Amino acid sequence: MSTFPFKIEASQGQARTGVLKTPRGDIPTPIFMPVGTAATVKALTLDMVKRANAKIILGNTYHLMLRPTAERISRLGGLHNFMGWDGPILTDSGGFQVMSLSKISKVKEDAVTFQSHIDGSKHVLSPERSIEIQADLLGSDIVMQLDECVSYPADEKRAQQALQLSARWGVRSKSAFGARDGQALFGIQQGSTFEHLRRESTERLLDIGFDGYAIGGLAVGEGHKAMCDTLDFCAPILPWERPRYLMGVGKPIDLLEGVARGVDMFDCVLPTRSGRHGQVWTWDGPLNMKNARFAEDDAPLDATSDCPASRDYSKAYLHHLVKSEEILGQMLLSWHNIAFFQALMIRIRAAITTGTFDILRADLLSRWLTKDG
Amino acid sequence: MSTFPFKIEASQGQARTGVLKTPRGDIPTPIFMPVGTAATVKALTLDMVKRANAKIILGNTYHLMLRPTAERISRLGGLHNFMGWDGPILTDSGGFQVMSLSKISKVKEDAVTFQSHIDGSKHVLSPERSIEIQADLLGSDIVMQLDECVSYPADEKRAQQALQLSARWGVRSKSAFGARDGQALFGIQQGSTFEHLRRESTERLLDIGFDGYAIGGLAVGEGHKAMCDTLDFCAPILPWERPRYLMGVGKPIDLLEGVARGVDMFDCVLPTRSGRHGQVWTWDGPLNMKNARFAEDDAPLDATSDCPASRDYSKAYLHHLVKSEEILGQMLLSWHNIAFFQALMIRIRAAITTGTFDILRADLLSRWLTKDG
Ligand SMILES: [Zn+2]
Ligand SMILES: [Zn+2]
Repeated sequence: MSTFPFKIEASQGQARTGVLKTPRGDIPTPIFMPVGTAATVKALTLDMVKRANAKIILGNTYHLMLRPTAERISRLGGLHNFMGWDGPILTDSGGFQVMSLSKISKVKEDAVTFQSHIDGSKHVLSPERSIEIQADLLGSDIVMQLDECVSYPADEKRAQQALQLSARWGVRSKSAFGARDGQALFGIQQGSTFEHLRRESTERLLDIGFDGYAIGGLAVGEGHKAMCDTLDFCAPILPWERPRYLMGVGKPIDLLEGVARGVDMFDCVLPTRSGRHGQVWTWDGPLNMKNARFAEDDAPLDATSDCPASRDYSKAYLHHLVKSEEILGQMLLSWHNIAFFQALMIRIRAAITTGTFDILRADLLSRWLTKDG
Repeated sequence: MSTFPFKIEASQGQARTGVLKTPRGDIPTPIFMPVGTAATVKALTLDMVKRANAKIILGNTYHLMLRPTAERISRLGGLHNFMGWDGPILTDSGGFQVMSLSKISKVKEDAVTFQSHIDGSKHVLSPERSIEIQADLLGSDIVMQLDECVSYPADEKRAQQALQLSARWGVRSKSAFGARDGQALFGIQQGSTFEHLRRESTERLLDIGFDGYAIGGLAVGEGHKAMCDTLDFCAPILPWERPRYLMGVGKPIDLLEGVARGVDMFDCVLPTRSGRHGQVWTWDGPLNMKNARFAEDDAPLDATSDCPASRDYSKAYLHHLVKSEEILGQMLLSWHNIAFFQALMIRIRAAITTGTFDILRADLLSRWLTKDG
């Protein structure tokens, strides 16, 4: 396999920086992927997303299969054409959101059945159907296997059942995916916070063989400390020479600590969601733009940024927009946050390249540990 | 007076095209001014507004005096600096919205007293205070006198009282405005749909002398036909050599018919408001993007437009965004509408210049009269 060449160019401890080559563009790693749930990165045009330095975005199979449906997107030329993004797209399998968002879902050996949260209609998602949706209908560049993710805390037996079902679904996903040029398939490690289960899951994934390996079942309520403790053992056992993707993570401090433990790829709705709710992320931690102390602060969020949202508007103006519940406030705060997350990854990559990641990490932790919760 | 040079370069019947020169840029007329109520053209960055070819935007005194307050905007460098727009800004007097949006308002000879619709706080708006807010605190380029606008239908006596109060307030506005370089003051004609009252109002305005003349008290419920019938007599009696501004208007057909009757300037929340609610305006009339017939229509709204919102996204994608209630849908539809309104004015100006306005008008009326209601 290894459809997409992945070259690690520098490393420091477990942290590494490199390039994942895809037919739609090179992805420098470690990378943060903005989430484009319903074929849109919320409140941003794709020009804004590009201007924020994003190189790859994520699409959600669950949302897209329900509306406008994967078949419709396929008839309209695939997801890239539909939404107008010519860079790489990673799609999730749909499994996580079926289990968290749908009205009723039932996991069986063959497939998950569920009811749409939009209109109550019934649907079936099997490993094969998820591959068909992602790889054939949406035309995703990086396709995720269907897996079962347990919430935290999970008892050991439940966690083991889920990883074993995920492994069997991994075999079926790989078989359905087959041999493809120009598209990659990632497997997903499960096992909750149990080291021996993460090892068992990894062995099963390596037997199957994937283009990349995701860490699933974290950021599901265990908290930053338990996530880091689990990453300590679950990331390094994944193959050094293939990309590692920590799904659904996270805050800036989570990205920093994930990179320190060997993670290459991240995605999270946090920058756009918190931007829509008045929160921005900065080098000095998060700020609530509703706070009255910004009412006459005429400094921008980051004068050194090349993102217009960070550079060209005063905090006083952003405060006014948020207080007035103006859509432009949601747009500018989301834009700033996406640009900040990319700026953070750019600094992290540069630090690993120059062997100064430990210094950057210590500096950022000292700024964030008290403020970033 | 005549602070801002206004040169009419061509005319055809009552329709005229020219340039209003302001220190912040030339305004080609006839012009449509997007409304930036609370210091933002809703759901658009100012880059988008510029990209849509807008040359001047409008700010609302009522909204801004309540939040963030005119004094705060003044301390933050004025409205242009606060919102980041370096082109001309026209502000309304606040009167119309005091009378339509505030909780309780009382019009007396001296001033209007009202309660904020946001927090119930009490405020006073006099002709002098309106000038202070617009000209001194916000730093508006084109300042409007405070007036009293009656709704439709109005009895003749009520309409006459309002125009006479407006005329007395016009005298006070002019006196408060004084002699200023680089800012212009417009008077407002009232008189409802009564020809002799519009004449009386005009005489009073001409006695005072303004840099430009607005037509108030239309688009207040009288409908397209009655508005046109009133414009037939109320626009031509305003001075030929000064700009004429029809306030709060309107649909594309209203702009077309207003130009035909000698109007030079228009503003309306319609393009952004209808864009936020799924409606777009086109050369073939309005479209409701929620309509299922667009679900698989892969053509853009206008392939010949240079606005990305009109040119780069399929109707199918816009339909999906609107159905999914995505903010990006509100952004793209608002952007398209603003660009379309500007494109309409560009075509109108070119047609007057080349003496083909009657042909353009007949063509557009034939497309819109059945659809544009
Ligand atoms: Zn997340
Ligand atoms: Zn209007």
